[in-house]
Amino acid sequence: MKALVLEEKNQLPRYTEREVPALAQDGVWVEIKAASLNHRDVWIMKGQYAGLKYPVIPGSDGAGFFEGKEVILQPGSGWGSDKKFQANSYQILGLPSDGTFSERVQVQRSQIFPKPPHLSMEEAAALPLAGLTAYRVLFSRCNAQAKEKLLVTGAGGGVALFCIQFALKAGLEVYVTSGEDSKIDKVKAMGVQGGANYKSGDWVGELKRQSGGFDLIIDGAGGPDFANLIKLANPGARIGIYGGTNGAVPNFSLQPVFWKQLSILGSTMGSEQDFADMLAFVNAHQIVPVLDSVFDLADGAKAFERMEHGQQFGKIVLKMP
Amino acid sequence: MKALVLEEKNQLPRYTEREVPALAQDGVWVEIKAASLNHRDVWIMKGQYAGLKYPVIPGSDGAGFFEGKEVILQPGSGWGSDKKFQANSYQILGLPSDGTFSERVQVQRSQIFPKPPHLSMEEAAALPLAGLTAYRVLFSRCNAQAKEKLLVTGAGGGVALFCIQFALKAGLEVYVTSGEDSKIDKVKAMGVQGGANYKSGDWVGELKRQSGGFDLIIDGAGGPDFANLIKLANPGARIGIYGGTNGAVPNFSLQPVFWKQLSILGSTMGSEQDFADMLAFVNAHQIVPVLDSVFDLADGAKAFERMEHGQQFGKIVLKMP
Repeated sequence: MKALVLEEKNQLPRYTEREVPALAQDGVWVEIKAASLNHRDVWIMKGQYAGLKYPVIPGSDGAGFFEGKEVILQPGSGWGSDKKFQANSYQILGLPSDGTFSERVQVQRSQIFPKPPHLSMEEAAALPLAGLTAYRVLFSRCNAQAKEKLLVTGAGGGVALFCIQFALKAGLEVYVTSGEDSKIDKVKAMGVQGGANYKSGDWVGELKRQSGGFDLIIDGAGGPDFANLIKLANPGARIGIYGGTNGAVPNFSLQPVFWKQLSILGSTMGSEQDFADMLAFVNAHQIVPVLDSVFDLADGAKAFERMEHGQQFGKIVLKMP
Repeated sequence: MKALVLEEKNQLPRYTEREVPALAQDGVWVEIKAASLNHRDVWIMKGQYAGLKYPVIPGSDGAGFFEGKEVILQPGSGWGSDKKFQANSYQILGLPSDGTFSERVQVQRSQIFPKPPHLSMEEAAALPLAGLTAYRVLFSRCNAQAKEKLLVTGAGGGVALFCIQFALKAGLEVYVTSGEDSKIDKVKAMGVQGGANYKSGDWVGELKRQSGGFDLIIDGAGGPDFANLIKLANPGARIGIYGGTNGAVPNFSLQPVFWKQLSILGSTMGSEQDFADMLAFVNAHQIVPVLDSVFDLADGAKAFERMEHGQQFGKIVLKMP
């Protein structure tokens, strides 16, 4: 089978022919037609996971065929019985097991769901991991409600864009931050109310003027700007965090957290129930993922380079041969 | 009327005769028999509140008589209509309005509640602010449940001790930290399962060994040790914070917060409903506040010194002449 293989740390993946491995006892084969990249894939390329072993076929997101039917894959397995957190057995496709950047992938039957009929294979492949992460942090963890004022940071990212799309359909008033004015313009065209460029001077004051403050903030960055999110939070606000790409928060003051009765809610991935709920929401609202670009699997190295440079707006998709 | 008056920043309060002021339009006079100190009173003495004006009679906690009946006072007023957070109108007795370290105090009628019958005036006076803060953070914010493993930091403090007492009655398994072994011994005698001295070597490992990790952590300190609380938190745990006496958290990593699906829940004081619920809980479980010491109002300066040095175990109470 054709596949994209990471063979060494810090090396772009190689498009190659791979022997089809034996099927595990509880595994089934799914034929992949399209897959999409996540930051996770780039971090795996950079060797930033404990216990990582090369070679590995990366990829957590895929859509394709199973027993003649169009399907989409739940990237996680083994969440466990408690909806509040994943069990130690929890795994995501693409590490340590081979992932979706391949003509075929081995999964558990419980990971296979019907593809949303209104989506193409490329669009469906863009949905799973980022859509699941967005759905859980926004609804399961932060209980987003219609009419609330929501700030989503880093408007171009996959999870951020799904948060924006889901929240708009749920009736929230959405604002964003981004490092590029063009991305703010693009989400405004989707229905977002306002936004500010965090590379500009007084972006915090600007957002405060536009919105009056936020009932809900969804952030995947952390870092020094997290203190500004605390400032922008209304009393009683929830701040959902699904990542920390900008590193630790220096000198984090708890005073506004207790005085404003804030809730800081960590979230990662999602349970089987979150995934089923997310698909139902996408179907009910006919949501179409935003695609940045589609590459042939053979050009997968270029897709990784684009992801690494962070210039994308929406999901980067791979198409199988 | 006799009262304890703060006349200047960083000066201990003076016991003196004060003229009874005019009654405000919506005010009523309550005769105070006993009052108790909070850290807030010491911070007011040190001038650490914005807009603070001397002279002021401090004191947020009081018990006494109103219309011939034994009463206890709700220290806050003007919480507002949203149970999630206090309105801008929210005020606490003792700043800016004169407080309870006096023979009489002016309050709104809605702040007056029947004194729990099983408590003496001194015991009842120990309850309001610390009991309210403990009740809200533990139950209203963190939804404490029977059989959960709870860590309470700083076992000697007023709020911490009420958290311990309430949680034990609610069926939780309680552990503590303290800087003094003798305080750990005292809470163990109350039913606490275990604890560790945070001045000892490997207190984090010690608590981990004793408990296996915590489902719920209540902290009023913050500071560098907050990172250790994150380490001790089980997946899905809630960390309730009601203060930050040890200052900001240096270099706060969000990674364990989202990966372990943690909830960090800020809380301060409590709503009218929280206060009524707290009193009902105290009555139902016949909870008796832990008193550190009782001073005559005339010796109030000594009470302030004791509070400032932080050696107390339980509440410091003032008795009216």
